[in-house]
Order: sequence, then C-alpha cells, then structure tokens
Amino acid sequence: MLKITKDCELLKNALLQRRQKLAGLVNFPAILWSGRSISRNYPALTYPFRASSHFLYFAGLQLENAAVRIESGKLELFLDDAPASSTLWHGEMPKRSEIADRIGADAAFPMAELKSRAKGAATVAVQDYLTQLQQAKMLDRPVFPAKSPEEIDLELTKAIISLRLTHDESALTELREAAAVTVAAHKAGMAATKTARIEAGVRAAMESEIASQNMTCSYPSIVTVHGEILHSEHYHHPLKTGDLLLADVGAETAAGWAADVTRTWPVSGKFSPTQKAIYDIVLAAHDTCIDRISPGVEYREIHLLAARIIAEGLVDLGILRGNPEDLVEMDAHALFFVHGIGHLIGLDVHDMEDFGDLAGYQAGRARSSRFGLGYLRLNRVLQAGMLVSIEPGFYQVPAILNDPEIRTKYQDIVNWEKLNQFVDVRGIRIEDDILVTGVGREVLTEKLPTDALEIEGLVSVCAPS
Amino acid sequence: MLKITKDCELLKNALLQRRQKLAGLVNFPAILWSGRSISRNYPALTYPFRASSHFLYFAGLQLENAAVRIESGKLELFLDDAPASSTLWHGEMPKRSEIADRIGADAAFPMAELKSRAKGAATVAVQDYLTQLQQAKMLDRPVFPAKSPEEIDLELTKAIISLRLTHDESALTELREAAAVTVAAHKAGMAATKTARIEAGVRAAMESEIASQNMTCSYPSIVTVHGEILHSEHYHHPLKTGDLLLADVGAETAAGWAADVTRTWPVSGKFSPTQKAIYDIVLAAHDTCIDRISPGVEYREIHLLAARIIAEGLVDLGILRGNPEDLVEMDAHALFFVHGIGHLIGLDVHDMEDFGDLAGYQAGRARSSRFGLGYLRLNRVLQAGMLVSIEPGFYQVPAILNDPEIRTKYQDIVNWEKLNQFVDVRGIRIEDDILVTGVGREVLTEKLPTDALEIEGLVSVCAPS
Repeated sequence: MLKITKDCELLKNALLQRRQKLAGLVNFPAILWSGRSISRNYPALTYPFRASSHFLYFAGLQLENAAVRIESGKLELFLDDAPASSTLWHGEMPKRSEIADRIGADAAFPMAELKSRAKGAATVAVQDYLTQLQQAKMLDRPVFPAKSPEEIDLELTKAIISLRLTHDESALTELREAAAVTVAAHKAGMAATKTARIEAGVRAAMESEIASQNMTCSYPSIVTVHGEILHSEHYHHPLKTGDLLLADVGAETAAGWAADVTRTWPVSGKFSPTQKAIYDIVLAAHDTCIDRISPGVEYREIHLLAARIIAEGLVDLGILRGNPEDLVEMDAHALFFVHGIGHLIGLDVHDMEDFGDLAGYQAGRARSSRFGLGYLRLNRVLQAGMLVSIEPGFYQVPAILNDPEIRTKYQDIVNWEKLNQFVDVRGIRIEDDILVTGVGREVLTEKLPTDALEIEGLVSVCAPS
Repeated sequence: MLKITKDCELLKNALLQRRQKLAGLVNFPAILWSGRSISRNYPALTYPFRASSHFLYFAGLQLENAAVRIESGKLELFLDDAPASSTLWHGEMPKRSEIADRIGADAAFPMAELKSRAKGAATVAVQDYLTQLQQAKMLDRPVFPAKSPEEIDLELTKAIISLRLTHDESALTELREAAAVTVAAHKAGMAATKTARIEAGVRAAMESEIASQNMTCSYPSIVTVHGEILHSEHYHHPLKTGDLLLADVGAETAAGWAADVTRTWPVSGKFSPTQKAIYDIVLAAHDTCIDRISPGVEYREIHLLAARIIAEGLVDLGILRGNPEDLVEMDAHALFFVHGIGHLIGLDVHDMEDFGDLAGYQAGRARSSRFGLGYLRLNRVLQAGMLVSIEPGFYQVPAILNDPEIRTKYQDIVNWEKLNQFVDVRGIRIEDDILVTGVGREVLTEKLPTDALEIEGLVSVCAPS
C-alpha cells in the first residue's frame, strides 16, 4: 500500500541521481521487484507489507507487487492498477500513472509487460518465495539467493552495495527522522519503567511512541531484564528492583529507513555499585569508539579498541587478569563482549544483510574464525556518508561462561570468584547510530543520554512494587 | 518461539479432549504443521512468528517448524531441538521433551521422523509456501489450498470445522482475555483522542494497551477518520473537529485467540446532530441483533434484521423512501450497510477463513449473488458455544454512491438531496463479540460503552487543536 512521502521533489531528485549513478556502474538493465504481502492466518489477513530494500532504494515507495526496470539512468515502473472492486475495501488508490509521476519514472506499464522487457536484465532475489519464482520465470533463468548471486546479478549486487554504502541527502533526511523518533521512544521507555509491571509495559510505551509518529519498528524490539539473551523476544518477565532493563528498539520511516538504539537502565531508578562499575566500562568503550570514527579508519580497529577498553576495565575491576592487549589477543574480551562493535544502518537495520558479507566485508576479506572477531558484521574502511552503529556490551551468557572447554581455557584469566560479585549484571549494551562525515562523525542519536546519572533521572527514583 | 501459557493443566486437558473428539470424526491420521517465520528484509529479520490456527487448536503453543500427528486421540509432536549455537542469541530453549510434556503429547520425535509416520495422513495446507512444499513432500502427494481440499483432507477439514465452530472452556478463557484487553484498548483510544494530532496517535494508544498486556493485534488495526474505506490501513490523516473516528482494533492472546471490536466516536468529543442520528440507527441495529442471538437462530436472519432496522431508520430520516421490508428486498440497505452483519471469531478473527466458505456456510449453502447479501461471511444456524461478531454499519462509499448504474437503479429510492445533509457521516460501525450460550447470549465485550453519551464522556469534551 502506498505511504505518503513528505517531499516529492527531494525524493524524485534522489531517485534520479541514484539510477544515474547505477548507470555509471553497470551496462545492462536491472529489474528490482518489491515483493508481496505475506498471509498470516488466511489470505486476506496479512503481515504489514514491507517492500524489498533494493526496490525502495530506487523506487522510493512501498508498492506491492511492483517492479522497476532501470537502464542507462531511465526508470520504468511495472505495476497493475488496483481492480475497481478493491475500492470498497481500500478506497481510491492512486493510479499507476500518478505513482509513476510521483517517483519520476520515465515510463510505466502493467505487470504483464514486464516479461517482454526482462531479457538480459540482472536482479536481486527478494525474500518472499512466490516473488522469487516470478523473478526466475520473468528472467527465464535461475535466480540465486541474494547472498550468493552469479554473473550479472553479482555485478549488480556489487554496484548496489557501492551506492547504498554511503547515504545521500534524501536518505539522511529519513535516517535523521528515524533516529529522532527512536530517541523519543527510548525516553518514553525509561519514563514508563516507573509504572510498568512487566517488560511488555515498557515495550508498549516505546513502540507506541514510534507508532504515534506513523512509523514502524525497524526490527523486533528487545526489551528485557535478561540482557544476556542477545535476541530475546519475550516480554513477560516482571520488572524487579535490582534488575537492569536492556531495550534495543528502533524506528523505521514510512519509506523504510531505519534507526537502531540500545540503552540499559536500572528498573529501580538506581544502578547498584556493581552495575554502575560495568556500565561505566561499556560507556567508556562506547564513547571512545565513537570518537575514533572518521573517514579512512578501519572499522575492525574500532572493534578491537572496544575489546581493549572492556578488557582493561575488567582488569581494573579484578574480573580479568593480565595485560589488556594480551587478553584481547586471547579473545578474553569475548567472554563478556560476545558480539561485534556494530554494523551498517540504512534501509535495513543491518544494512544489506541479505547480501551476506558481500556488503559488510570489503572485497577480499572474510569472517575471522577467532572467537573475539568472528561476530563482526562490518569490516571495511569507513567512508564519509556511511551510517554505522557503535554498540559495545557486557553479558554473562551461561552458555559461554559455563562451557567446560571455555572455563578450562580461561581458568587463570578470569577471577571467577570476583565475577560472582557481579551477578546482578546480566547484560548491558549501549548503542548509537553514527554518521561518518567528511571531517569525522555525527551521532544521529546523541540527544538520548548515555550518562548513568541522567538515565537515572529519566527513569526516576520511584521503584515499581 | 515459545510463549508462556498460564494454566498448563487446563490446556493439556483441552488439547486431549479436542483430539479425542477428532478421533470420533475421522478414522485416519492427521498431520498439522505450524509453519515457519517469514523473512522481512533479510533471513534473520523476520515478521513475528504466528503458528497456523489449526496447529494451535491441537498443540496449544506457538512452535516454529513443528508438526503434530494425531491419530485415535493420540498426539505425536515433531520438533527439532534448537541447535546449541542458538543459545547465545535466544537463550536456553525448552527441549522437545519438556514441550511435549507441557502439551500432554503421547510421544515426541525430531522432524526427520515425520516422513516415516506420514503415510495415509490428512492435512490442511498452511499459509506459507515453503511449508506447503514440505507438506506435499512429506505426504508424497499434492496438497491443495485450504479452501479447496480433496478426499481425506476435505474430510479432515469438515471435522476440524465441526470442532472449532463451538468453543470449549479453555478457548473461552482465552477469548474472554482477548475481549477484556480489547475493551481496554478502545477506552485508551477514546481517551487519547483529546491529545492525538493524527490517526496514528490514537492507534498507538490502542495498540500500546494490547502490547502492554503482552498480546498482539489479531488483525491490522483500522483507525481512521475515513470510515467509508472499510479496510483502511493509513493512519496519517489529521484529526479534525467534526470528524468521526472509526476504530476497529482487536487483541490476540499469546496462544492465538482473537477479539474484534469497533467503535466510532467524535474527534471533538461531541456528535453533530446528523452524526448522532445515524449513530443511533446503527446502534439500534446493533442492540436488536445482539438481543436476537440464541441457539437455533439463523444468522442470515440477523443480517436481514439489521438491514431492516437500518432501512427503517433511513426512511425515518428521509434518506430512503418506501417500505423498509421492500427496501431490503431491493437491497437498498446495502447502499449504506455495505457488508455482512458479522462472522465467526476464534483462533482467527474471521475464524477459519482459510477454509473459504466451508466454515462460514452450512453444507449446501452458497454465497448469494444479491448485492445486499453476498458479503455475508456466516450463514449457519447458531449453536451454543459459537462466538460471532455483530457489526452493523453505515458508510457513504463514493464508489457505490457515485456509480451511475446504482444511481439510476435507486434514483427514486434515495433522497439524494437529503443525503447531502449527512455529509459529515462518512462511516460508522459498532461491533461486539457475542457468545451464543445455551439459553441466549453473552456479550464478551459488553464493558465497552456503545451509548453515545458515555462515549462522548470517554473522549471528553476537549477538542484537539
């Protein structure tokens, strides 16, 4: 269904520039499908439609069952007008010609015309299986998954990656809006902690802020007192005095652009000394890593910087033993900082993750097999216009810390007795969205406090019952 | 992912009774698949998982990539344990054996065992295409869509319909919870109207109430000042003094049971005289139809009763001319009451709509070709234990009222000039969920006011800017 865009001319110009840039990179036509609505219970009851990000990048609008064909900087839109019978249920829909005008298409056709214009075109496989079948049928050849494209599809993929890696002004306008609403959502979540009984109460307050701005969530919210479960999607746990609440929640604009923010705060409104001690280590890693962001910097080095700061902090607290540099070499940081320092953000919260590591990893680089590096999603030299997350964390994951092999390997490195004193720190993450600028960086989400005292103020000092 | 159920023993007993009843209806095994998570942007970013309703009916829990095999009242669960590597991201998951115990399964196996136990089994096609392919592969035969099953699949479908048509105590417990939270959501929506600037603000307040109870929405919310667009999914329109806001929003419990409620209220906190006049007609239809619900009553007659009351009211207002009975015969009510009086409610908001009309229409009955009857989703004799919606409405749909053929046909029936005075009544619907009891009815959503004055009180008299 068509969502409203605020500034049609800005969008039109951005779309024109994007396809002109594409024309400089590939000399064959590209066809990008939007995908279709997915049934939930029965055919008429569907999940909210969300177009493929690659389609959105070049077409700008959430159009169902549509495709764009791009060649030499020209855009053709393929879309069927809604049948007259649908007017009763869905109201008057804009006609194909109006939509084509809105996005500055050079021509527009019904879907039935696509087959005759498909020869020799490259594409990217969408997520939904029925549209994938249609892609193969229209192109009259196999279409491999987006993470393993072949021949011209691989060339197109590389070209799209080189475009989407850095953001133009139109994209940045959207990304800033998503960031601003996400900041408001986190403030609402902190404020709601005072009265919420279970995690779901805080989640509801946060998502409500996003929905009230007519945006959606860019990923399933994590709002949990079990921050050590990285992708927890349960919200039924009670909020208890002494718990930390970890909220990883982001907004997505109507046009599909994402934000991704995490804060961790005390349910009672006050960090315990152990929680504060670990929080300050994670915050130091967060602040120092953000300060290091600049064009030309290796993102992997920022990950290792976070690892060193966390190792150092844990040595200072007596949880780890040894020299921080050596500890990172031994992956001891990864006992607690169990994921990478961050990822690309754009039309996807992990931008272009459908391409596997083709987008996140510079050509010629591959995932490390090291325990302390293998989860890194981004391994590139930073360029102006990239938007990345910085999200250091500390977690006590039972599956890691109770693993007999790991316990043996790190027996003398970890002061297990000391660690037991930090049992009330199950998971802490602090995450912001940082734009690489020509001279350094801009934190799009900087209006959300990271400082423990300010956060305590937002949560308030009233403990829930 | 596994959600928590409150009362395991109640659930276990209900599941046992359901499959024992099934054993009385079919003499072949049935295998029901739950389906899988659907990718949104990329494989790891999925829509919230929702199991097939038929699976939920017999298995009770939202298990991904699972199946149950039911034969002679015995239940076998097929489910793979989560790989150890997933513990980092999703925490410790319950083992197959624990889940089997929780639902009272007689045996439990990994998915790989299903093929050898699939011979001769009937099934129902799920919604997701990849699982459909798996169904056909496991059963080694084609599996047709749920609305057009063949042979034993058709027999199983009829058996499931006969079970799911009426609700047991376990189901009713869930349905009452969904209804209660839905009532709270509507009250929150009315209260939020005072401060919301756009429809999205009211929607956010309503869905937040649902999310805060750890429930989901049972269908995409309709919250619109354009009530004449029956399935509007836009939320960007400003709320203006003089507008009516139509909200069709329902909760779904973690186990999948739905509610479905609509209220229509004035943005300003006060109905105009024209709005009040039409509201009272729709309310009279609503109240009278609910009073008529009883075992043994033809639901179609309730639809026609609503049609007569609406026609009568519109004659009294001078909008229609003629005898109400005759007007209904001529389908004149359907110019404004453009849909059916309601539908079944259960694990689906339109319960078992994946079966097409096999569930909604009694054997031997088919949709009417009449303009004023063809949209009726339920045409059965009511039985104790059925849950149905009653949702009369009045709409001025441009596609209907401006249709030249319709205008000609109803030229002398409609006082078009008089109708013009009611231009501020674009769409009104009042919908509740009614359980057919042994002696009559119980309105599960009765705590939500329908009375115009009470609604005005809830919205408050403060108009938004």
